[in-house]
Amino acid sequence: MSQSPSLDPSHRLRVVDLSEADLLARLFPRLPVPEGVLLGPGDDAAILAAPDGRTVISIDTLVEDHDFRLERPNGHRTTGYDVGWKCAAQNLSDINAMGGRATSLVVSLTLPPTTPVGWVEAFADGLTAAIRELGAAGCGVVGGDLGAGAQLVVTAAVTGTLDGREAVLRSGAKAGHTVAVTGTPGRAAAGLALLEDKRLLEDGRPSRDFGAVGEELVAAQLRPRPPLALGPAAAVAGASAMLDISDGLIRDAGRIATASGVGLDLDPEALRQYAAPLEEAAALLGVDAMEWVLGGGEDHGLLATFPQGALLPDGFTAVGSVVPGEPLVTLASQAAALRGWDHFAH
Amino acid sequence: MSQSPSLDPSHRLRVVDLSEADLLARLFPRLPVPEGVLLGPGDDAAILAAPDGRTVISIDTLVEDHDFRLERPNGHRTTGYDVGWKCAAQNLSDINAMGGRATSLVVSLTLPPTTPVGWVEAFADGLTAAIRELGAAGCGVVGGDLGAGAQLVVTAAVTGTLDGREAVLRSGAKAGHTVAVTGTPGRAAAGLALLEDKRLLEDGRPSRDFGAVGEELVAAQLRPRPPLALGPAAAVAGASAMLDISDGLIRDAGRIATASGVGLDLDPEALRQYAAPLEEAAALLGVDAMEWVLGGGEDHGLLATFPQGALLPDGFTAVGSVVPGEPLVTLASQAAALRGWDHFAH
Repeated sequence: MSQSPSLDPSHRLRVVDLSEADLLARLFPRLPVPEGVLLGPGDDAAILAAPDGRTVISIDTLVEDHDFRLERPNGHRTTGYDVGWKCAAQNLSDINAMGGRATSLVVSLTLPPTTPVGWVEAFADGLTAAIRELGAAGCGVVGGDLGAGAQLVVTAAVTGTLDGREAVLRSGAKAGHTVAVTGTPGRAAAGLALLEDKRLLEDGRPSRDFGAVGEELVAAQLRPRPPLALGPAAAVAGASAMLDISDGLIRDAGRIATASGVGLDLDPEALRQYAAPLEEAAALLGVDAMEWVLGGGEDHGLLATFPQGALLPDGFTAVGSVVPGEPLVTLASQAAALRGWDHFAH
Repeated sequence: MSQSPSLDPSHRLRVVDLSEADLLARLFPRLPVPEGVLLGPGDDAAILAAPDGRTVISIDTLVEDHDFRLERPNGHRTTGYDVGWKCAAQNLSDINAMGGRATSLVVSLTLPPTTPVGWVEAFADGLTAAIRELGAAGCGVVGGDLGAGAQLVVTAAVTGTLDGREAVLRSGAKAGHTVAVTGTPGRAAAGLALLEDKRLLEDGRPSRDFGAVGEELVAAQLRPRPPLALGPAAAVAGASAMLDISDGLIRDAGRIATASGVGLDLDPEALRQYAAPLEEAAALLGVDAMEWVLGGGEDHGLLATFPQGALLPDGFTAVGSVVPGEPLVTLASQAAALRGWDHFAH
């Protein structure tokens, strides 16, 4: 059933043209070699080292037409590279949010039989690039699963180490602590709005109306850059609570509030700096940039709380404070409407 | 958007009627509480104990219409309970095949928005039942991900511990070693053939033609029972190579042959005992029962090799021997045609 690769370049080959073993043989050389692993891919399971006697673990899935679109009505194409990047980035971010360092990924790919082999190879390349460029040195793919399905579904489980430190949970915020963020809240949401807008050019790149700023916003959506050095830095600095902003600042702040049994009061003035670089795109689309800042997820920056007087690590910006009382999120002491992403009810 | 559960019982509620938080709140009480876990569900990641400094990990996916069918043309319905059971069983089996003991699962569910909430609850119940009934005491669900998609896709990553022992890899078989199996090779494949047969009754149960034997075969396919005590027992007994029979005896034997650089010669006479209980179904369907024994996967029994003179643990049966030479599988020294499951090329 296989065809000669020399007659049929990989961008035309479909996964149905290859055996599972042949497809794996094409993918493995593209994936980062895991370090500090006791047994890598090729057996029924892999074996990870856990020098401090603990393993951190999380799982995340991306689904075609829900978490990404291969092709949008305006012609923009999300590449395999983009999906591989995002798959790695959002998983690495979950370990970062605990104050840990990612050590391995296991990856399951559900592929329509007509999926071009080149798409899957690009997926592997994007995954590898994210691991390297985001600074997850030593983290590699130690196992996986391949199967057929009606749409592309990409799941990765990620493991990490705390390197002997305590984890930073969502539940440790106390009244009087400082609320701080890293990264670029709202940027990925603005990028998504641009991607969904009809004014994108046919080739899927932002039109001149959006310019270089538009490209940056789109990149934040397609290839988020979680600040992997800052999770451990926050842990070392004594962060009392932390998570990654994946579903929107207000919604994620609410999770710390609930887990910690405190209120989080955010300062709209401090947050306005994040809206400023989005104003141009917001004006073009006729929306309020602050809505992206407050409700947009997927940037995978960190939201953390620090005890009074703690020195915030470089990269964190104070944007509010923890207050006693109901576990609610307020903006300058006013109730904040719940915004952000819910997978089913929206 | 939610409706009152009192007006709308869960078998009519669809996942789109609930928020993600509400759906999780319905699932968690049904899932087994993990033991020996340092941090369970509810944060960005969970934290597992790894007392011997190692964590075993694997990942497996089940896809609607590829790995299971909600409804077959003959009327048989695969329940959420069945899919939950199988999801747990096949993942637990991967740890068993290393000689380890499963400690946790992280589970990602991709659900069409119209999926009945009752289906997802049954999934959780089946997962829990498999963990308990198969003897994976202490193993629990420590995290997960929920999302929407066009078809049901269920992925679990499983972790395990080796309890201080060495893992049993695929690569340790040496000429002269004994080849042994556990479980019921061919039974799940026979069950699948019955499930796909038109002679099933309308309500999806095997007709009287198939009788009690038919029900057993169908159960082997829908709710496989990997022998979780036997992986560690084989490790203690000195097994030199091991894997779980998931894609077919010949195909999986070939994996040990390739990894170990040896031949595996299987004894057809010894294997015939596994065909005997399948003969009645085979005769009804007009097929050769030995084809199910040699090519059928999904029973999740173990295939292992043991050094000469090693006492096989109770539950293992000698079915051949490791021979020098090319890494091939033979049947009474005759070349065996490759059988079994390949996800794309079949």
